Amino acid sequence: MKTPMNENPLQLLMNPRSIATIGAGNNPMKMGTLHALSILKDGFTGKFYPVHPRDEMVAGHKAYKSVYDLPEVPDLALFVLPADKVPPLLEDFGKIGTKRAIIISAGFREKGPGGEKLEEEITAIARRYGIRFLGPNCIGIINSEISLNTTVMGAKIRPGKLGFASQSGMYVTQALPYLEKRGIKFSKAISVGNEANINLINAFEYLGQDHQTKAIALYIEGIREMPRFLDVARKITPHKPVVALYVGGSGAGARSGKSHVGAMAAPDYLYDGLFRQAGIIRVNSIGELYIFGWMLATQPLPRGKRMGIVTNAGGAGTTIANTVEKGGFEVSKFSDALQNGIKPLIPPHGQTSNPVDVTFDMDMLKLAEKIPKLIMKSGEVDAIILHGAQTSGFIKSIYPHLRDSTDSSLESMLEMFRNDYSRAVSLPFDYGIPMALSTFFGRDDDDVAAAYQDGDIPVFDDPEKVARAMVTLLRYKEITKRKPYVPEDLPAVPKKALEIIELARKNGQESLDEHSAKLVLAAYGIPVSTEKVVSNEEELAKAADEIGYPLVLKVLDPAILHKTEQGFVHLNLKTLDEALSAFRAIRNGAGRKVPVLVAQMVKGEREFLAGAMRYPGFGPCVSFGVGGIFTEALRDTTFRLAPLTDNEGEEMLGDIKAHRLLGAFRGMLAADTKAITSLLKQLSALLLLHPEIAEIDLNPVIISGDKPVVVDALIVLK
Amino acid sequence: MKTPMNENPLQLLMNPRSIATIGAGNNPMKMGTLHALSILKDGFTGKFYPVHPRDEMVAGHKAYKSVYDLPEVPDLALFVLPADKVPPLLEDFGKIGTKRAIIISAGFREKGPGGEKLEEEITAIARRYGIRFLGPNCIGIINSEISLNTTVMGAKIRPGKLGFASQSGMYVTQALPYLEKRGIKFSKAISVGNEANINLINAFEYLGQDHQTKAIALYIEGIREMPRFLDVARKITPHKPVVALYVGGSGAGARSGKSHVGAMAAPDYLYDGLFRQAGIIRVNSIGELYIFGWMLATQPLPRGKRMGIVTNAGGAGTTIANTVEKGGFEVSKFSDALQNGIKPLIPPHGQTSNPVDVTFDMDMLKLAEKIPKLIMKSGEVDAIILHGAQTSGFIKSIYPHLRDSTDSSLESMLEMFRNDYSRAVSLPFDYGIPMALSTFFGRDDDDVAAAYQDGDIPVFDDPEKVARAMVTLLRYKEITKRKPYVPEDLPAVPKKALEIIELARKNGQESLDEHSAKLVLAAYGIPVSTEKVVSNEEELAKAADEIGYPLVLKVLDPAILHKTEQGFVHLNLKTLDEALSAFRAIRNGAGRKVPVLVAQMVKGEREFLAGAMRYPGFGPCVSFGVGGIFTEALRDTTFRLAPLTDNEGEEMLGDIKAHRLLGAFRGMLAADTKAITSLLKQLSALLLLHPEIAEIDLNPVIISGDKPVVVDALIVLK
Repeated sequence: MKTPMNENPLQLLMNPRSIATIGAGNNPMKMGTLHALSILKDGFTGKFYPVHPRDEMVAGHKAYKSVYDLPEVPDLALFVLPADKVPPLLEDFGKIGTKRAIIISAGFREKGPGGEKLEEEITAIARRYGIRFLGPNCIGIINSEISLNTTVMGAKIRPGKLGFASQSGMYVTQALPYLEKRGIKFSKAISVGNEANINLINAFEYLGQDHQTKAIALYIEGIREMPRFLDVARKITPHKPVVALYVGGSGAGARSGKSHVGAMAAPDYLYDGLFRQAGIIRVNSIGELYIFGWMLATQPLPRGKRMGIVTNAGGAGTTIANTVEKGGFEVSKFSDALQNGIKPLIPPHGQTSNPVDVTFDMDMLKLAEKIPKLIMKSGEVDAIILHGAQTSGFIKSIYPHLRDSTDSSLESMLEMFRNDYSRAVSLPFDYGIPMALSTFFGRDDDDVAAAYQDGDIPVFDDPEKVARAMVTLLRYKEITKRKPYVPEDLPAVPKKALEIIELARKNGQESLDEHSAKLVLAAYGIPVSTEKVVSNEEELAKAADEIGYPLVLKVLDPAILHKTEQGFVHLNLKTLDEALSAFRAIRNGAGRKVPVLVAQMVKGEREFLAGAMRYPGFGPCVSFGVGGIFTEALRDTTFRLAPLTDNEGEEMLGDIKAHRLLGAFRGMLAADTKAITSLLKQLSALLLLHPEIAEIDLNPVIISGDKPVVVDALIVLK
Repeated sequence: MKTPMNENPLQLLMNPRSIATIGAGNNPMKMGTLHALSILKDGFTGKFYPVHPRDEMVAGHKAYKSVYDLPEVPDLALFVLPADKVPPLLEDFGKIGTKRAIIISAGFREKGPGGEKLEEEITAIARRYGIRFLGPNCIGIINSEISLNTTVMGAKIRPGKLGFASQSGMYVTQALPYLEKRGIKFSKAISVGNEANINLINAFEYLGQDHQTKAIALYIEGIREMPRFLDVARKITPHKPVVALYVGGSGAGARSGKSHVGAMAAPDYLYDGLFRQAGIIRVNSIGELYIFGWMLATQPLPRGKRMGIVTNAGGAGTTIANTVEKGGFEVSKFSDALQNGIKPLIPPHGQTSNPVDVTFDMDMLKLAEKIPKLIMKSGEVDAIILHGAQTSGFIKSIYPHLRDSTDSSLESMLEMFRNDYSRAVSLPFDYGIPMALSTFFGRDDDDVAAAYQDGDIPVFDDPEKVARAMVTLLRYKEITKRKPYVPEDLPAVPKKALEIIELARKNGQESLDEHSAKLVLAAYGIPVSTEKVVSNEEELAKAADEIGYPLVLKVLDPAILHKTEQGFVHLNLKTLDEALSAFRAIRNGAGRKVPVLVAQMVKGEREFLAGAMRYPGFGPCVSFGVGGIFTEALRDTTFRLAPLTDNEGEEMLGDIKAHRLLGAFRGMLAADTKAITSLLKQLSALLLLHPEIAEIDLNPVIISGDKPVVVDALIVLK
C-alpha cells in the first residue's frame, strides 16, 4: 500500500486492512494469544494471519509456518514473542514489504546494555526496509472507529471522542474495565512503549489530525524531542483541547520511568512551563486525565462564566458551588422570573435560587430535564451541573426493604419509574451549554447514569469531580483565547558579544566577569546598570562624575565568590569621599590591586530574576521569577522553552504567584511588561545563538520606575 | 433510662433499645416509610413502635394511634412529617419521658423567618422536657455496631472503623451505595442537619470517645461554636486521626450552606488555620474524605518514610513513586539481598529494584503476598503500596475471548485461579507496616479487591489515590508528634493600655493614633520602634538626639490616610538638617500644626505582618504573614484562633510559604522565632482582654538583626 510522504506513520498502523501475528498460539494463558483474541473478538473485520512454527490453526484461523507463506503482504505485523526472536522475523516482514509493526515484546532498552543493542538492531532493520513500528515494550492500540483492539485485554469497544496516547501500556489495558464501568470511551488509544521508532509525538500529532478525536489525553514519563513536541502542541491546542499527566518529576518517578520505558525525565517545574507554553492543561492523576479529557471531548465550551446548579441535596449544591467559584465560575441567584418558573416543580422546602435543590422526588425528569431546560432557556447561565439524577439504582437499593410492603415486583417498579432521557441528554447540544452530572450510582446499576453517558454527557461519582471537570472547560476556553503563536526570527549575533565570549574562552574562563556579562547583555539590547571598571582612584573619580551619585562599588574578580557577605559590595555611596573609602576597603580586603566596578545605584523596591539554561533531557529554556532576597524564600519562578515569543513572555509574567508585584501599587508605577518580556526574549535568543553559553543568571533585575534594569549578571560558559 | 450527667447526648441516641416513628406509614414511596424500613430491615434488634393516626399496622408492626398508647417509653423518637406537626408531637414524647429524638423533617430555620420560629419552638419544648434531639432537617444516623440505620436509604450494614459526622445528609444516604461498592464501612455516621440541639461538635466528641471508631471524617459547611470545636479537636487529634472537608469558603458555597442548613461560613483561609491548629487533616473533596478516612481508620502508622512499591505495570510504579515522593516518602532501591530474594519470583524483563514490576503473571500470590512479605521482612520499608492485584475481574473480562479456545467453563477457570488472600491481608498487621492496593477492578467484579477490603486493607481505583492516601498517614504521623497542647493563662491587663483605650473612646476615636497604638503594644511587651511625638522644632531636635540617627518622620493624624503616597513619611534622615526640612515639609503639606512622630529608622530587609481580628461566624483570631510591599502581592498569611499558645505560634511561622525568610541566609541572621511567637501570643491576648478592640494590624514588623520590631501599627476600636 502506497502512503503519501508526509502521512503520519500511525495512519496506516491504526487502520490496517490485514494483520499478521507472531507469537500468538492456542494457549489461552499466553499473552500472544490474548492479543490475537482481542483482534479477533472485539469487532475488527479485516484479515487476520497468524504466523506459527508448528500449529496448523491458531484461534480457529489458518496459521502460516513462515512469513513467506502468507497469502498477501499484511499491512501490519504484531510481535509478541521473546525479544531476541524479534529481529530476524522483523527482517522477514521487511523483505516481503510489510511497512507497519507493533512490537509488544519487552526486554529491549529498558533492560540496559544487552537490550539496548537489540533495540538498535530492530531500529536498523526498520530503517532498512522502511518499516515504521510502535514499541517495543508497548501494549498496542485501540481504534474504536474500526473496532480494532490489539491489546492484551478484551474490551467492549464503542466509538468515543477521547484520543489517548500513553508512555505506559497499563492505562490502555488494565484500565479498560475501569473505563467501561464509567462509560468513558476512546476514539483511538496508543501505547508507545520504548518509542524506538514511532514516538509519543507522532501519536500526539496523529490524534491532533484525527477527525474522530475531539480531545486528547497524554500520559507522559519523559518527552524526548522537546522542541518538536512543542511545535506539534502549538498546532493542536488552539483548536483541540489537550490534557496531560506528567509523572517523572520526582527522583524515584524519574528512576522508575527510566527502567520502565527508558524515559528521560526532568523536574516538574520545567514541565509546568512547557505545558503552559504548549496550551496543554496539566492534571494530577490518571483519574483526572480520563475524566477531564472526557469532559473536554464531549461538551461545548461555556460562552461565559455563569454556572447553574441543580441538585436533590443541599450538600452537593454547596460542594459544587464552592468548587466552581474557586475555579472561576460565578454562581449567582437566578432571576425572580426563572425562580418562579422552577417553583411549581419543587416542594416548598426546596430551593429555587441557585443551587436549585429539588429535594427527594421520584419524578426524575424534573431534575434531569425540566428544570435544566428552564434554566438553559432563560439565558441566565453558561454551564449547568446536575447532581443526584438517579432512578433504577435507587429503586434497586431500596427494593429489598419494600418487598414485603408492596405487590409490585422489582421489574414492574423499575418499569414504573423508567424515563426517556433522550431529550434531557440533548439539552447541552441543543443550547450549546455544557452540562455534566454527578451521582453516587454508576452505569452498571443506574439507568440515568447509563443514559447520560451514552448521550455523551459525562457522569462523575463525586460532586467535587464534576465541578472540577467543568472548571477544566473554562481553562480550555482561556487557552483558545491566547494570542496566536507567531514564530519570530532570532536577532543577528552582535559582533561585540562574540568577541567578548571568544576572549573569555581563550583565557580559559569558566564564566564571564560581571562587567563583560553586562556588555554581552547590552549588545542584545538588554538594559543593564550604567557602570565602569576602574583601576585607580583617578579613574574612580572620573567614572563617578560620569555616572552620577549614588553609586555602588563592587570587586570585579571572578575568583571572589559571595561578594556581599565578604564586604566586597558597597551600596548607596553619595559622595566621592564615600566612594574613595569604599574603593580602598575593597582593595584592602582583596589584598591586591583588583579591578573595581563602579555602577549607578539602581533604585527600586521590586527585584526579579531572569535566566537561561540548558537542562539535560529538556533543552534550552528561560526563566523568570521573584528575585533578590526572596529568591530562595519564595522559589516563585516560571520556565519556558527557548526561543520565546513576545506573547509567551507576557504569559510568563502572569505565571508567577507574585505577579501582582508587576502592577501599580503603594505609589509605585506598573512595571513595563513589554520591556521585561523583551528582556526574556533576548535572553532566550542569547542562549540559542551562543552554544558556548551554558547558563545565564540575572538577579536582581530591579524595576526602576517602570523599567527593568539588570543589576547583577552571571554568564557561565560550557 | 437514667444517663450520667456528662454523657454525650448521642450515646443513648445512637444506642436506643426502642424506637418510635412518627410519619412512617405503609406507602412505600413516602420518606417516612423508607426511614422506618431501614430500621426494620437492616438488622436493628431493638423494639419498634410506629405511631400512626389511622393504620392498625405499619410495615407489619402494630401501630399506635397516639404517643400515649405506646406500651413503653421509647428511648428514641424519629420524626418524618411536615414541620408544623412536629412541635405538639415532640411535646407528647416529652410528657411520656422520651429523652432522645431525631427530627428528619425539613422546613425549619433553613426556610427563613417562619421556619426559624418553628425551630425555636421545638428547641424550647426539648429544653422543657430534657429532650436532646438531632436535626431538624437531617437524615438520621447509622450505628454499625448494632446494625441500626435510620436513614432513608437501605444499606448492607457491616461494622467499620471510620466515624463520620456531616452537615449534609446526602453523604450518609445517597452515598451509601457508592461506599458499599468501594468496600468503605462506617463505624457510626451522623447527619446533624440544622443542629438546633445536638450539634456537629457533640457528634465529633462522641466519635472521639467511641471505641469502635478509629478515625473520624467531618463534612463541614460552617462551625458554630468555634472555641469549643477547637477544644474538642485538641483532645481527639493527638490519638485519633481526623480528616475534614470544609466547603463554605466561596461566596456561593456560603450562600448555599446557609440556605441548606443555616450554616454560617467563613473564608477558606481561616478554616485552613483552624484545622492546622486543631491537628485536623484538611481534604479537598468528598471522595478524599471517605478514602483518606478509611486509610487512617484501618492502617498502622508508618514508623519511618521508606516506601516499597510492587506493581504489575511500570506506569503504576512511576505514578505512585512520583506522588509518594512529593508527599514526603523516600523510594530507595532495595538492597541486593532483597532484590535477589525477589528475582526468582519475576520474569527477566521484570524489575526488582523498587518499584518492583512483576509484569504479567497469573500467579497473583506473588504480587499480593510473597513479594510484599519478603519486603516487609527485610526491614527496608515503612509502608507498602501494591498495584494490580486482581484475578476474577481479569478472568471475567478475558473469558469471552477464550470461550472458543478452551474447554474450561468460566466457573472452573475462576476456581483454577482462586487464592486464599487471608495471609496477604494480615501482613500489615503482622508487621505493623501500612499497606494499600490500587486496582482498576472493584469488589463487585474482582475477588482480590473484595478480599483486601474485607481484610481492612483499603483498595483504590487509581494509583495516584493510593499514593495520596499513604501520604495522609505520614501527615497524621506528624500530627501525633506535635508538642502537647498546654493552655496558657492570659497576661494581666496593663493599666497603661486600659487608660489609652479608654481615652480614645472618650474622644470618640474610631482607632488609636499610631503612637498610642504602639504604647498599648509596648505595654504588652511587644517590641516597637523607639519614637516620640513632637510639636515643634526644639522638641524635634531633642527627640532626634535621644533616639539617634537615621530617623523617620511621619505625620501623626488619624485623619490623614495613605501617608506614604501623600509624602507624609520621610525615611532615612541622617542629620538634623534633613530632619528639620522633613518636619517643615510635613507641616506645609498638612497646612496646619499637626503633631509629628519621630522614630528610629529600623533597618532590616525582611518585613512581616501580624494582626488580630474578630471574624463574624469565626471568632477572634490572629494572623502572621509576609508584610511590606509584598503583602498584597503574595497574600501569604496564616491564621489561628485566639488565644494562641507558644507551640501554636511556632507552627504559624512554619505555615507561610515564605517561611524560609525566617532562616539565616544571604548574610542575615536567623530570625528569633521565639520573639515573633511571643509577639503573636501577646497580640491574641490583647484582642481577648480588650473587647473594645475590633482589629489590630501591624505592618511592617521588620526583622532587625534577629528581632522583630513593629514599625507601623493600627488598632481599630469597635
